[in-house]
Amino acid sequence: MITSTANSQIKHLVLLMKKAKARKEEGVFIVEGRKMFEEAPRAWIQKVYVAESFLQEEMHKHLLDGIEYEVLSDSVFKVVSDTQTPQGILTVVSMPEWNETEVLVKENGCYLFLESIQDPGNLGTMLRTGEGAGITAVIANQTTVDLYNPKTVRSTMGSIYRVPFIVAEDFYGKITDMQKKGVKFYAAHLKESQMYDAFDYQGACAFLIGNEGNGLTEKTADAADAYIKIPMEGNVESLNAAIAATILMYEVNRQRRGR
Amino acid sequence: MITSTANSQIKHLVLLMKKAKARKEEGVFIVEGRKMFEEAPRAWIQKVYVAESFLQEEMHKHLLDGIEYEVLSDSVFKVVSDTQTPQGILTVVSMPEWNETEVLVKENGCYLFLESIQDPGNLGTMLRTGEGAGITAVIANQTTVDLYNPKTVRSTMGSIYRVPFIVAEDFYGKITDMQKKGVKFYAAHLKESQMYDAFDYQGACAFLIGNEGNGLTEKTADAADAYIKIPMEGNVESLNAAIAATILMYEVNRQRRGR
Repeated sequence: MITSTANSQIKHLVLLMKKAKARKEEGVFIVEGRKMFEEAPRAWIQKVYVAESFLQEEMHKHLLDGIEYEVLSDSVFKVVSDTQTPQGILTVVSMPEWNETEVLVKENGCYLFLESIQDPGNLGTMLRTGEGAGITAVIANQTTVDLYNPKTVRSTMGSIYRVPFIVAEDFYGKITDMQKKGVKFYAAHLKESQMYDAFDYQGACAFLIGNEGNGLTEKTADAADAYIKIPMEGNVESLNAAIAATILMYEVNRQRRGR
Repeated sequence: MITSTANSQIKHLVLLMKKAKARKEEGVFIVEGRKMFEEAPRAWIQKVYVAESFLQEEMHKHLLDGIEYEVLSDSVFKVVSDTQTPQGILTVVSMPEWNETEVLVKENGCYLFLESIQDPGNLGTMLRTGEGAGITAVIANQTTVDLYNPKTVRSTMGSIYRVPFIVAEDFYGKITDMQKKGVKFYAAHLKESQMYDAFDYQGACAFLIGNEGNGLTEKTADAADAYIKIPMEGNVESLNAAIAATILMYEVNRQRRGR
């Protein structure tokens, strides 16, 4: 059992929790909690760390059968954990490598294109809601917050294992490529635009979602095939980015259910 | 200028930031930032606190004309502020007293009924999105997180001034009362239920939204006139509470626009 935070494995774990660079270099990220452990594809699991008290619980007895794990004292576990009340299990998981060609040319695919989303909770929520709505993939530009930071991972509620996520080095190039393949791009925008539910989303489509504070850059908005408007009553100037994405993705879901 | 955190006004401000009880006793809450100051109804403003550097900016010169304010040194301001990078203006605002009878009997009103929502960001986002969707009011039970805590206030983005919010001492009583007046109650639920968009929301309606972790209690779900289901693809077990509320409120908005 590891009882000191000076232990090299612990120092390494803390580094992986805090630094996107370290995660990227090693191609791993950390998930917390029992549900996130159980939903992780077995082949992605590299190592598991559990708190002493977690292991002592009867219901956790066979959870780790055949898995390589390390036990930490509860106090050391608390230092590593990103949550206030840790569940006592932490898993080091390989980053998925999604097949871009396969993901981006799905027939009637539906995509979210994210430009500089900054809030980890927003990003995680968009993956979770995106899976629920049935979208094909999420594509982000390079200044979008790291998908693998603990808060984002947590708010995906497991969708991080299932929704293809691609960070595009050439964000505009990707938009143009996909337009050539027939994907229609829609930008939520305040410029003269039609209601979001005035369009037919049966075919391949993508939504451009901008930064929380500043919305889409002009360059990105200009790349869209059409501007769409989500109606807002009262004095609301804008909606939260994840909320706007939700309304759009579930409109696609509604239309494709034939309603 | 106040330069010490030992100052009694500062101690009082910190108390109001941190303690729901103190806010309730005095009937005030605190909003941060220029936008939240400017959107506050003038009659609700009790006092303004600004950071020294905020006041020095040319563009802020006439902002405070005719308003009673106090200047704090930047370091003292930072101690009081709830944000990482404070904007330098903090306003003490009276809690609104919404007229329940007026609010709850609106013709074709649309309501959110919240049971034990725990995440401040979720609550604030529901008010913001609710204003955008055009709902009439939000009603919460007593174990829902305090609307006036700084994080919730911030995430309302000003909707806290405009969306009537009522904490119901008798949550079930209120549901029954409104049902008698013809309001239809819908519960998002996993029990046998129809798609949320299979119902007609032109008339007065209310949505019961449950706690993030546990959903609605059986007692509350039982009070509903109908169960509704938001379709979820993939392995998603549930949606975030604010996300579910968004889908429902914007479906009402869509139907009432005649789409």
